[in-house]
Amino acid sequence: MRTSIATVCLSGSLEDKLYACADAGFDGVEIFEPDLVVSDRSPEEIRALADRLGLRLEMYQPFRDFEGVAPPLLEDNLRRARERFTTMRRLGTDLMLVCSNVATATVDSDQVSADQLRRLGDLAAEHGVRVAFEALAWGRYIDDYRRSWRVVERADHEAVGVCLDSFHILARGHDPAEIEKIPGEKIFFVQLADAPALTMDVLSWSRHHRLFPGEGSWDLGRFVAHVARAGYAGPLSLEVFNDVFRQADTRRTAEHALRSLVWLEDRAARLPGSPGSLHRIADPAVPSGYDYVEVKAEDTGEVEQLLERLGMTFRGQHRTKPVRLWSAGDARIVLNEQHARDQRPHLAGVGFRVPDAAAVRDRARALAVGPAARRTQAGELEMPGFMAPSGIEVFLNDRDLGGEPAWVAEFEHGRPHVPGEAPGIGGIDHVNVSHGRDAHDEAVLFCTSVLGLESPSATQAAGPHGLVHSQVMRTPDGRVRLSLNVSPAGVTHPDHVALACDDVVAVARRARERGLEPVPVPGNYYDDLRARFALDDAVLATLREHQLLFDRSDAGELWHFYTPRVGGLCFEVVQRVGAYDAYATDNTPVLLAAQDRMDRAVGRRDGPGQGRPDL
Amino acid sequence: MRTSIATVCLSGSLEDKLYACADAGFDGVEIFEPDLVVSDRSPEEIRALADRLGLRLEMYQPFRDFEGVAPPLLEDNLRRARERFTTMRRLGTDLMLVCSNVATATVDSDQVSADQLRRLGDLAAEHGVRVAFEALAWGRYIDDYRRSWRVVERADHEAVGVCLDSFHILARGHDPAEIEKIPGEKIFFVQLADAPALTMDVLSWSRHHRLFPGEGSWDLGRFVAHVARAGYAGPLSLEVFNDVFRQADTRRTAEHALRSLVWLEDRAARLPGSPGSLHRIADPAVPSGYDYVEVKAEDTGEVEQLLERLGMTFRGQHRTKPVRLWSAGDARIVLNEQHARDQRPHLAGVGFRVPDAAAVRDRARALAVGPAARRTQAGELEMPGFMAPSGIEVFLNDRDLGGEPAWVAEFEHGRPHVPGEAPGIGGIDHVNVSHGRDAHDEAVLFCTSVLGLESPSATQAAGPHGLVHSQVMRTPDGRVRLSLNVSPAGVTHPDHVALACDDVVAVARRARERGLEPVPVPGNYYDDLRARFALDDAVLATLREHQLLFDRSDAGELWHFYTPRVGGLCFEVVQRVGAYDAYATDNTPVLLAAQDRMDRAVGRRDGPGQGRPDL
Repeated sequence: MRTSIATVCLSGSLEDKLYACADAGFDGVEIFEPDLVVSDRSPEEIRALADRLGLRLEMYQPFRDFEGVAPPLLEDNLRRARERFTTMRRLGTDLMLVCSNVATATVDSDQVSADQLRRLGDLAAEHGVRVAFEALAWGRYIDDYRRSWRVVERADHEAVGVCLDSFHILARGHDPAEIEKIPGEKIFFVQLADAPALTMDVLSWSRHHRLFPGEGSWDLGRFVAHVARAGYAGPLSLEVFNDVFRQADTRRTAEHALRSLVWLEDRAARLPGSPGSLHRIADPAVPSGYDYVEVKAEDTGEVEQLLERLGMTFRGQHRTKPVRLWSAGDARIVLNEQHARDQRPHLAGVGFRVPDAAAVRDRARALAVGPAARRTQAGELEMPGFMAPSGIEVFLNDRDLGGEPAWVAEFEHGRPHVPGEAPGIGGIDHVNVSHGRDAHDEAVLFCTSVLGLESPSATQAAGPHGLVHSQVMRTPDGRVRLSLNVSPAGVTHPDHVALACDDVVAVARRARERGLEPVPVPGNYYDDLRARFALDDAVLATLREHQLLFDRSDAGELWHFYTPRVGGLCFEVVQRVGAYDAYATDNTPVLLAAQDRMDRAVGRRDGPGQGRPDL
Repeated sequence: MRTSIATVCLSGSLEDKLYACADAGFDGVEIFEPDLVVSDRSPEEIRALADRLGLRLEMYQPFRDFEGVAPPLLEDNLRRARERFTTMRRLGTDLMLVCSNVATATVDSDQVSADQLRRLGDLAAEHGVRVAFEALAWGRYIDDYRRSWRVVERADHEAVGVCLDSFHILARGHDPAEIEKIPGEKIFFVQLADAPALTMDVLSWSRHHRLFPGEGSWDLGRFVAHVARAGYAGPLSLEVFNDVFRQADTRRTAEHALRSLVWLEDRAARLPGSPGSLHRIADPAVPSGYDYVEVKAEDTGEVEQLLERLGMTFRGQHRTKPVRLWSAGDARIVLNEQHARDQRPHLAGVGFRVPDAAAVRDRARALAVGPAARRTQAGELEMPGFMAPSGIEVFLNDRDLGGEPAWVAEFEHGRPHVPGEAPGIGGIDHVNVSHGRDAHDEAVLFCTSVLGLESPSATQAAGPHGLVHSQVMRTPDGRVRLSLNVSPAGVTHPDHVALACDDVVAVARRARERGLEPVPVPGNYYDDLRARFALDDAVLATLREHQLLFDRSDAGELWHFYTPRVGGLCFEVVQRVGAYDAYATDNTPVLLAAQDRMDRAVGRRDGPGQGRPDL
């Protein structure tokens, strides 16, 4: 289906928006009237620019407070409409959005609204244009798409159809299945927005908190499938009012928006009974695990010291690049000193094991994710990679050799692989990525659309400089877990890599013996643990001795500790006991406060602002 | 009454918070348990620090999910309480907050809850402490303060009283008048928070959007008066969960918090029938008008050129300082080149005419507003002044001489005063101050508490780089109006001074003749005006000729134009027709887009980031 976006979704001038939409690959846009009003370009100039860029001006919007009014007001409303139709002809746009009346309606009658829309239809036809009537979720009388369709049906005018907006339908909890009862040719336009699950007045929710498809909580695939089954043949158009996107980079938001739409159409196409009109892209391939985590720095020595103390093994130096590999069980850390001048250690990349790397590459290409190149010399493994949001490179691998990823063979002069010898580190449990608010929604969509991850939960933790918002993205089996964290403005918390083991006490003991000082845990924390969990003195003594943190759920327990940060990075070692499936977020404030004390103690050498250099 | 604040209101470590509260002048604090848990200081150390700082540790909080439970859970809850009482004794705190049960209550019975609280009271008494029971607005069964009091009354235990929190009472719309039915000695604690009028789930509202008294929409003066009339003799304690304050500067927030409490007690004390236990400060004195606006820059020449073009008069050079005065009617602009090296023109101060400057100075002192000094030489007028939030100095004057402020006589070698000759500039209509989100609530409180301004409305306008939030503060008669604007992160919109006149067309025409190019208004705007207001062609032609903006309300019309920005400042000229009382916020996006185009045209020389140097 054609792709479109309302100009209100983006920041910048109207010309900025048109260039960005064209470059991102949209087929068309909805012109948001206030964007035209503040522009110094005439409607004819905008039309000519859109023509040159190959963008259709799909709709002009919004026209407010038209129907359900007393007769004198109707005449003034028709006068207003005539002015707008004149502007539309100058723009070369043939469809106008008419929202159900919020402010001036005084007559609650399908017949009256239908009669008035018929008058509007006559006027529109005279101007060679059409109108799409939309039930706003907060319309005075008409606030349900089924009623807007009843009114349009009764108006029975070829220039009058409905506009369906997923927000107004799903925010009210109305069943979108009845869309299929509307003849496709009477659906003049479809607008799409996702939204987080919030309990607030629907107007504020709509005006500030909409999200692109795949970033919120709604099943928009099903919504689009209903629309397609109804026979709708117009564009799928994004209308996302969001305070963050309004101030984000125009081009980047446009690319991100188009990605959400491509992903959504593919998702709808895969539902049983969906028509062939919906475009599919390459199949998703959920990662089966972590291949590696890459840490970059001018000097990675401090990180290697940490890994050695955690009991990991130096596996060798890459044969053609200043890159080194450490591993333990299935945990592999790649240390990269290439092109890292003046950079402190930071999380630079993540590799995933996938069943078919080429398929994921094709899917990512269809989603317009930019590629990242791995420099390969003769005989080295080529792996598809992408520039993921948050400044991280993601690479995919489906080739094994001798029980390890095939690329491991490119490292030489190290120690051999020791397969999963308990009680050491056995693998990567999860990776925790910190980024700014601006990058968050895009990162969520990347995980959803390219990697097929799910987002079961979002939490908040109080740090000494503000709340940290955290959203976990994971595979259904939990083998890949990414925690996406938004730090308060002006603060950069370190990323961290959580390493899994079966005996965290043993790992901690050996690490201490090798010289590791874990992040210190305050005595008050252990008093609190005793109060909360009624832990006995022996358990508390063990926790205290090794500076371990603890959590318990109905399913099991988590025992864990953190290393001090090195640059923008630290490591966590976790032991999951029983079926414990969470992340001990109650302990996050303890970590944040302790990191803050350590940052202060070293004069913030590695403090806020020492994250990834690309951020 | 004693002043107190919950440590959760502030950012930083627990020690940071205690130092900041003591320095601000609080009598005590509530220890928020998670702040203690993450601290590396023992309870004994915290106690000793508070002792040294002269801070009382008024309460330990919160203790959750205690009552209304089945018997086995009660025993575990008592065990938990015993642990907390032990911590409290180490802290030297004798009061614990017990919140009504949210998660684990299974018995909806006053008798059962009372019996269980009596058990808790026995245990508390054994430890020499007391408990204050609070009805959370979202308690499972007990969500109304009248019911929490019924339960406490039935528990009938000397160690069990109620805690009253304005948020939980007012968010539910419960009438606080019934507080007076509770015996004062059974009110163990009072917590205060204001809040904006939001329609959202009460838990999110409470956890993220509370404000200090005087910044939200509630009548907390009346609330405190009820508490005082009930005979409550404990502290008034702030408990404000707010995402912005959590990341703001600790000391500054503490000062701001104490100011809100001093203001609130004064306000309560002034209500009819309030007891003498409430402390009053000096009377408020509402400004009767603007005295002047001060613009500072290394070189104010460009600003003087603008003022000359707007028809203002050079009144002279200050006799001892590099400061110049321009005026027209009652509008006075002071141009200051003192200590302004490398500074572009920006709004640096505002002077108000008040009936009694010394009284306002005394009130500001009582509210702990920091003074600003005016360098005065022999024979020059001394005026009290303050460092207001947003980096602006505010001075007060009550002395006139020859129909003008007395300090005008300090300027010499200029032209004489021309009293209000129409159609020129006649006065200052309003001043528009831009600041970051962090500074906003503090600025609102300054206007409310020191200047006695009211806040009738808040609006939003879309700029090309995000939404601008705007809150107007004004005197009831409208003679002083300040618009406080929060720009999107990373963007600094210019402040502006709006000058009033009776014939904006004449002012605009003469200004053009003298060389002023007003901010250009796009043709599309005039097309939109015609559609919205059915303006006739002659009116539109006049607006277009002079690049005027227009708005109409039921009460009248506003005609206005803007000058280009110079540094971080621009001027607006407004003509109010009829009883038009607003600010044409629908036109703000037109201004913001035009300013953005002009900034880009000059390569952002004066663009974002060129605001007041102190910000």
